[in-house]
Amino acid sequence: MQSTMQDYQLTIASLMHHGTSVHPDSEVVTATAEGSRSITYAELGKRTARLAGALRALGIEGDDRVATFQWNNAEHLEAYLAIPSMGAVLHTLNIRLFPEQLIYVANHAEDKIVIVDDSLVGLLAPQLPHLETVTHVLVAGPEAAQANLDSLRSSGKEVLLYEDVLAEQPETFDWPELDENDAAAMCYTSGTTGNPKGVVYSHRSAYLHSMASCTGNVAGLTFADRVLPIVPMFHANAWGLAYAAIMSGASLCMPDRWLQAEPLVRFVTESRPTISGAVPTVWNDVLTHLDDHPEVKLDSLRRILCGGSAVPVSLMQALRERHGLDMIQAWGMTETSPVASVANVPLGIRGEEEWRYKATAGRLLCGVEGRIVADDGSVLPRDGEAVGELEVRGPWVTAGYYASDDPDAEAKFDHGWLRTGDVGTLDHLGYITLTDRAKDVIKSGGEWISSVDLENALMGHQAVLEAAVVGIPDEKWQERPLATIVVKQGATVTADELREHLAGDFAKWQLPDAFAFIEEVPRTSVGKFDKKVLRQRFREGELRVEPLS
Amino acid sequence: MQSTMQDYQLTIASLMHHGTSVHPDSEVVTATAEGSRSITYAELGKRTARLAGALRALGIEGDDRVATFQWNNAEHLEAYLAIPSMGAVLHTLNIRLFPEQLIYVANHAEDKIVIVDDSLVGLLAPQLPHLETVTHVLVAGPEAAQANLDSLRSSGKEVLLYEDVLAEQPETFDWPELDENDAAAMCYTSGTTGNPKGVVYSHRSAYLHSMASCTGNVAGLTFADRVLPIVPMFHANAWGLAYAAIMSGASLCMPDRWLQAEPLVRFVTESRPTISGAVPTVWNDVLTHLDDHPEVKLDSLRRILCGGSAVPVSLMQALRERHGLDMIQAWGMTETSPVASVANVPLGIRGEEEWRYKATAGRLLCGVEGRIVADDGSVLPRDGEAVGELEVRGPWVTAGYYASDDPDAEAKFDHGWLRTGDVGTLDHLGYITLTDRAKDVIKSGGEWISSVDLENALMGHQAVLEAAVVGIPDEKWQERPLATIVVKQGATVTADELREHLAGDFAKWQLPDAFAFIEEVPRTSVGKFDKKVLRQRFREGELRVEPLS
Repeated sequence: MQSTMQDYQLTIASLMHHGTSVHPDSEVVTATAEGSRSITYAELGKRTARLAGALRALGIEGDDRVATFQWNNAEHLEAYLAIPSMGAVLHTLNIRLFPEQLIYVANHAEDKIVIVDDSLVGLLAPQLPHLETVTHVLVAGPEAAQANLDSLRSSGKEVLLYEDVLAEQPETFDWPELDENDAAAMCYTSGTTGNPKGVVYSHRSAYLHSMASCTGNVAGLTFADRVLPIVPMFHANAWGLAYAAIMSGASLCMPDRWLQAEPLVRFVTESRPTISGAVPTVWNDVLTHLDDHPEVKLDSLRRILCGGSAVPVSLMQALRERHGLDMIQAWGMTETSPVASVANVPLGIRGEEEWRYKATAGRLLCGVEGRIVADDGSVLPRDGEAVGELEVRGPWVTAGYYASDDPDAEAKFDHGWLRTGDVGTLDHLGYITLTDRAKDVIKSGGEWISSVDLENALMGHQAVLEAAVVGIPDEKWQERPLATIVVKQGATVTADELREHLAGDFAKWQLPDAFAFIEEVPRTSVGKFDKKVLRQRFREGELRVEPLS
Repeated sequence: MQSTMQDYQLTIASLMHHGTSVHPDSEVVTATAEGSRSITYAELGKRTARLAGALRALGIEGDDRVATFQWNNAEHLEAYLAIPSMGAVLHTLNIRLFPEQLIYVANHAEDKIVIVDDSLVGLLAPQLPHLETVTHVLVAGPEAAQANLDSLRSSGKEVLLYEDVLAEQPETFDWPELDENDAAAMCYTSGTTGNPKGVVYSHRSAYLHSMASCTGNVAGLTFADRVLPIVPMFHANAWGLAYAAIMSGASLCMPDRWLQAEPLVRFVTESRPTISGAVPTVWNDVLTHLDDHPEVKLDSLRRILCGGSAVPVSLMQALRERHGLDMIQAWGMTETSPVASVANVPLGIRGEEEWRYKATAGRLLCGVEGRIVADDGSVLPRDGEAVGELEVRGPWVTAGYYASDDPDAEAKFDHGWLRTGDVGTLDHLGYITLTDRAKDVIKSGGEWISSVDLENALMGHQAVLEAAVVGIPDEKWQERPLATIVVKQGATVTADELREHLAGDFAKWQLPDAFAFIEEVPRTSVGKFDKKVLRQRFREGELRVEPLS
């Protein structure tokens, strides 16, 4: 018996047609130095068609790659929609990549055209001569004409103004029929070993991830929402918030390059988003700003999504208690599109116990299956206790990497499951608790010590701005935890006080034996703690370890 | 460039595994004569495995069809999950089908096994001997052992107790790998011409429809919700509410056969659903009951979905104003899985204008494309004015009918679009306004008269329980509207008063020239007004038309 249902393809084009035609009055607001600028979704649809026409006119055919080097703004959104919808592949370049990584990924993906923001011309120009396959650069943004175009032109590439090429094109485009399994977009993960590895999303994976984001258990987006993606569109698709907003008809509030607490808070009060998403450091800065400006209220926000690295409970508690803001932790990675789990609190849980669940990496979404696997490859019980590596699979999880020459790439997969590299537990309600990145695990005397738990507890101390805990070699115990601490401006705290602060919540053998006060925690290009660098600094004697009394 | 994403199949099995493993504490509550009975989703998962084992043991292989003849209850839900997940095809038999239709559809689908509720044995028994391909009948429900099993056995089929066959099977089942395009379930539409026609849903269509139901623009289901599907599971999949609840982890409140206002309202107050769905007549009865019992509050309900036929604005207003209940109209049909549009009010609309949007058939969901087509096949503008037939397409819209011998079946499709048979307009915000079924259209002097608008207005009169308007032949005008009226118990109203009541909202030429008071509106087997019967009664002189002064 055959199903009688239509063979309708789940494509970014169909999502774009829906959003721009059924929700023509929704808007994209982009922050500017003075305030903001806006276009409606109806206009967005026309500009998307113009962009597709322009790219086709410049020679983009088939699955050619078009790269973006942009902040979160209306033009980046146009690229998000036009490039996949015309059948090409969107390659979001991380503007924070180290130069050699940027050159590697652009050449590896064979990018043909790069769209760059006016404000990022200076950052791109030095690398542009080395982007071998790039033929054209389009400079976007209100100040594009005033940018230093010569610095780009000296590369020998053809440099055009984005608005000029759009103006030459009609408001409609002959969108091709696409297969939902066609490549739509790609994003490289900044691995800490070897070259970056590319994940190639399909139209289908982006569509299904967007649908999941619109469900009640994730963000429950409706066309009455206003979505503020602070997490960059060059980082794991801004957690899918851009496509999900278009799908639901929610308006988008785009912060562009105004990511410091003061302009960001101002943009929130002016553009009144209902949902936002960013990494913990951003919210930490926002919290400090709100604490200093008690007259400011972010009362339009009904839900704040936070992830990218473990979210300190103290941050969530401070936001709720002092500012009435509800922060929800989510977990995922570039390889999972990225959202895989969201830490909603289970039904019937009240009071203090709530925080136990809000501290987890979240509950598995429908569509993402998870399991915990031991070192020997056996699947461990889902009891919230057995610790092992988290493996996931699902329609928006990658099965491999694009043309990778990394011999380790294959080891990231286990019979159809993605090995996440995250270590932790899974409980009978589908909540994931992560204790460490596999590569950052601290094993002392045969027992795990969770750096994440220690960091969370340390960041709960009023004098601590940030804390990163790494394992350092120990003759007797194999490894022991070292806590590196960034103290808040104007505050003071001693190693003994911090150890005392931890003593109530941890067994004695879990407490760090060594504390080092540092200026800032080194970070990777996507803003995560770079513990490899911390361990290296320790080895090279660059960290001054404070004596404990 | 190939996408690197996993080839993960969207199946009812994966939805079932998610719901029963990640939400083990959610529950299925089934109404009983005395109160209710409950099982958890963890138990549901085990019983689903047992049922699959039992069906396999009874010879169900491949895509064999297993039929259900059941109310909305836990056992029907087990069939919903087990049958498609084991690779077989669920055929939901409409218990209200006329005997010859029931026999036709069961034979046409070649059903092998029928699962029947204890309370429905008497309804099935007379037809059972004619169900040629059926070999076994499983009798489900707490009273199964007390049912008149002999009345079934006399058919020569093997008759077994559902609980007995489940008890013999293990709590786990070796679920097969399925393709998402495999047939999962089927439902026949009770066409008013020719034999019923079967729609065969795929795993993919059911999965995507469930995801859509969980999005904020539809029901926004979360695991904190409790879903009460009053619309039968044998009627267009209970609007997808059963699968959507499992997917989101929402609990289910199943009314079984207690669909009269009094036990239904009691079940709502006891099981405390947050979301419910039913046709207007059910809510009409509930409204009358609530009006008579002002002490009863249905305050657990945050959203009431209504559809299946046009929802009178007066009903929605009465529920909101007198009982604080928010009713949302949705539109769809068996051929669209069924939900295609939901009448959320656009952003920024307040006061009286709200009702204009709440009166529509709703706004197109992402995934469903719609267009209005003229008689000559041309596509009309989406301006809210041009009237034509609504055509839709999408991943949960059918492309045909199962092995249909109806020569008209092909005419239901237009180059990949489903011709819905509904006539109306589409506006620039994607709102559908339906004025008539194509076959019920009234065309007077070359102009459309909307029977739906007239019915809505008539049902807004305090003395009118129900109103159905049909076109009757007219020498001068080709057709003129005849209003048939069911007066509320104890109330009185005259034809003149009703015409006067309409005069404010309609042009004179649109007003019915003829009124007939009837005992009840004839209905099809799915509870819709059967206007074919009304027109026939008029032709045969069975309707007494009241003189207007």
